[in-house]
Amino acid sequence: MSAHDELRIKSNIKDYSVILVDDFSKALVEDSLEKSFLVIDQAVLHLYNLKLQGILQQSKHLVIEATELHKTLDYIEVVIKTLIDNNVKRGDTLVAIGGGIIQDITGFVATILFRGLEWTFYPTTLLAQSDSCIGSKTSINVGEFKNQVGTFCPPQRVILDINFLKTLSPADIKSGLGEIIKVHLLDGGDSLKYILSHYTQDSSDLAAFSALILRSLRIKKNIIEKDEFDKDYRNILNYGHTFGHAIESVTDYKVSHGQAVTVGMDIANYISMRLGILPQKSYELMGKALGKNLPEFRVEKEQVEPLLVALSKDKKNIDQELSLILTRGPGEMLKMKLPMDRSLKGYLNDYRTFAMSR
Amino acid sequence: MSAHDELRIKSNIKDYSVILVDDFSKALVEDSLEKSFLVIDQAVLHLYNLKLQGILQQSKHLVIEATELHKTLDYIEVVIKTLIDNNVKRGDTLVAIGGGIIQDITGFVATILFRGLEWTFYPTTLLAQSDSCIGSKTSINVGEFKNQVGTFCPPQRVILDINFLKTLSPADIKSGLGEIIKVHLLDGGDSLKYILSHYTQDSSDLAAFSALILRSLRIKKNIIEKDEFDKDYRNILNYGHTFGHAIESVTDYKVSHGQAVTVGMDIANYISMRLGILPQKSYELMGKALGKNLPEFRVEKEQVEPLLVALSKDKKNIDQELSLILTRGPGEMLKMKLPMDRSLKGYLNDYRTFAMSR
Repeated sequence: MSAHDELRIKSNIKDYSVILVDDFSKALVEDSLEKSFLVIDQAVLHLYNLKLQGILQQSKHLVIEATELHKTLDYIEVVIKTLIDNNVKRGDTLVAIGGGIIQDITGFVATILFRGLEWTFYPTTLLAQSDSCIGSKTSINVGEFKNQVGTFCPPQRVILDINFLKTLSPADIKSGLGEIIKVHLLDGGDSLKYILSHYTQDSSDLAAFSALILRSLRIKKNIIEKDEFDKDYRNILNYGHTFGHAIESVTDYKVSHGQAVTVGMDIANYISMRLGILPQKSYELMGKALGKNLPEFRVEKEQVEPLLVALSKDKKNIDQELSLILTRGPGEMLKMKLPMDRSLKGYLNDYRTFAMSR
Repeated sequence: MSAHDELRIKSNIKDYSVILVDDFSKALVEDSLEKSFLVIDQAVLHLYNLKLQGILQQSKHLVIEATELHKTLDYIEVVIKTLIDNNVKRGDTLVAIGGGIIQDITGFVATILFRGLEWTFYPTTLLAQSDSCIGSKTSINVGEFKNQVGTFCPPQRVILDINFLKTLSPADIKSGLGEIIKVHLLDGGDSLKYILSHYTQDSSDLAAFSALILRSLRIKKNIIEKDEFDKDYRNILNYGHTFGHAIESVTDYKVSHGQAVTVGMDIANYISMRLGILPQKSYELMGKALGKNLPEFRVEKEQVEPLLVALSKDKKNIDQELSLILTRGPGEMLKMKLPMDRSLKGYLNDYRTFAMSR
């Protein structure tokens, strides 16, 4: 990977680039630090203290613990007050260094403070590097309602340093791989083949992960550039997410986002097969890719009811209808509404026994 | 005024129209109320209870007391929770009925809830009808910092019913007239002449006010269409506002916004004259228009110091420099930075004696 690889993202708001670099700290120093305010994930600061020390001496910054509890309007206000107190001005740039939560907080603040500031993003997790860093969505929680508030807010640029993967936990890697598999299944048969032969959890293999990340970003780029504001086509990125969110919820987020989505895709595929739109052969082929990334978690008998309750609470599933991305096969997705009735319960129970028998 | 007068505003985000109607309640009924959520100023509801009763029975709504204290992120969260609890969905439309504060709250919520909802605006004050209803800015306070948070958020359309003026207080009328004079001075000599001969505080003269409002909106339209995001040229709309905000602050908002801006323009003109860029004849001619709308308030000796303190706290005036719109004459504005030093204090003191002598 050269230091000058670049992926250009078209946006209705403002085009931007993902730039691959060999050392994020060099890129940071090249930014004009006196006009920047850094927002850094606490965990990243601990891991990269040596590299960041000198930079933090030169630049105003805020260290944030990356927890869902900080994705609130209350905390957004705390961040904004800190920025104003630190004399951040219109024309300055916010620099986010972290994963999706740091991205959400910084991007959201950048949209609303002074009616818009520039921001730059240094994604540090596999999820952020391979998925959330493009698409320009930010998400904030309001009370019990997750991700209901947000904006479309493209960064000035995304600086991607693959070396961050070296310090990620296996759980983080598997979580990122869930979204990587997702876009490959969305893309079609060739990408399914690619992921079947190139899936790896060995994050020391940076070359393999570089290729996976770039492939994932290119697939996502094609989707978001067609429908940036998620009016229609971009919905397919929710593949696996309806059941995924419910699984995260019933397991108290013990199953990571990406692995919950992995199960979610398998359930969506199973229902597609039961509805007669996905041939069993395709179900099995797609399941082979998903199988590589399934969590320990399995849908147990006593979890079917809580899952249904979680699904009914999901704000996307309005009027007792489940909004689902189903599939006819790799690259052939379709959006469907399913009534939340006994047949859904039946599918979940059948999936449970079916999945256990594999 | 026919029911079909329409002013089209070009926006980089989304074009929209100001539509003049004879009866706002008819326009409301014609909207699809089942897909709308109304946000109404409490005072407007009291005044127009009879007209609104039937409509409110058919539509979900929230009644808000229009106070600056509600322009906070805390209250934004309350509004958002109410909307979600009332099952407002992506695809629904928020309908704001009120003045600038209701506009700020509704427009801001419409930008961030579900990453963007449509909204429609029924401005009920002269300030909102003649000024704030176009330009797509929303402003929210953060702690002691006023209007530091916000978005650019064009409504779907603005429905303007001039009959609201009948129930406005003389103070509200004079406040609106401040911004009306402002855009006429920004526009040039012909508009100055127009305002000199057409200025009136008699709000029962709806024909006169229709003309004033439309003229003001057309002038503002030309300015915001050139620089919607306030990068440069649009700054001239801040004419009179630097001192205006300081006067509002030192008088605890007893002087209304528009009348404070009226004094603010007079001070900016006085400084322009003292700096030798505004001929005395022009100062006097512009002062003739401003003189029609000055408040009881005068800059007294003991207020100079508090005014300077308020100016130094204004976040726009960074690094001890005052950001000002000065003038060479009607239609000839220029942006200047003035050091906040003894000469500024001198100008304010001299303006005080000079203004008193008139």
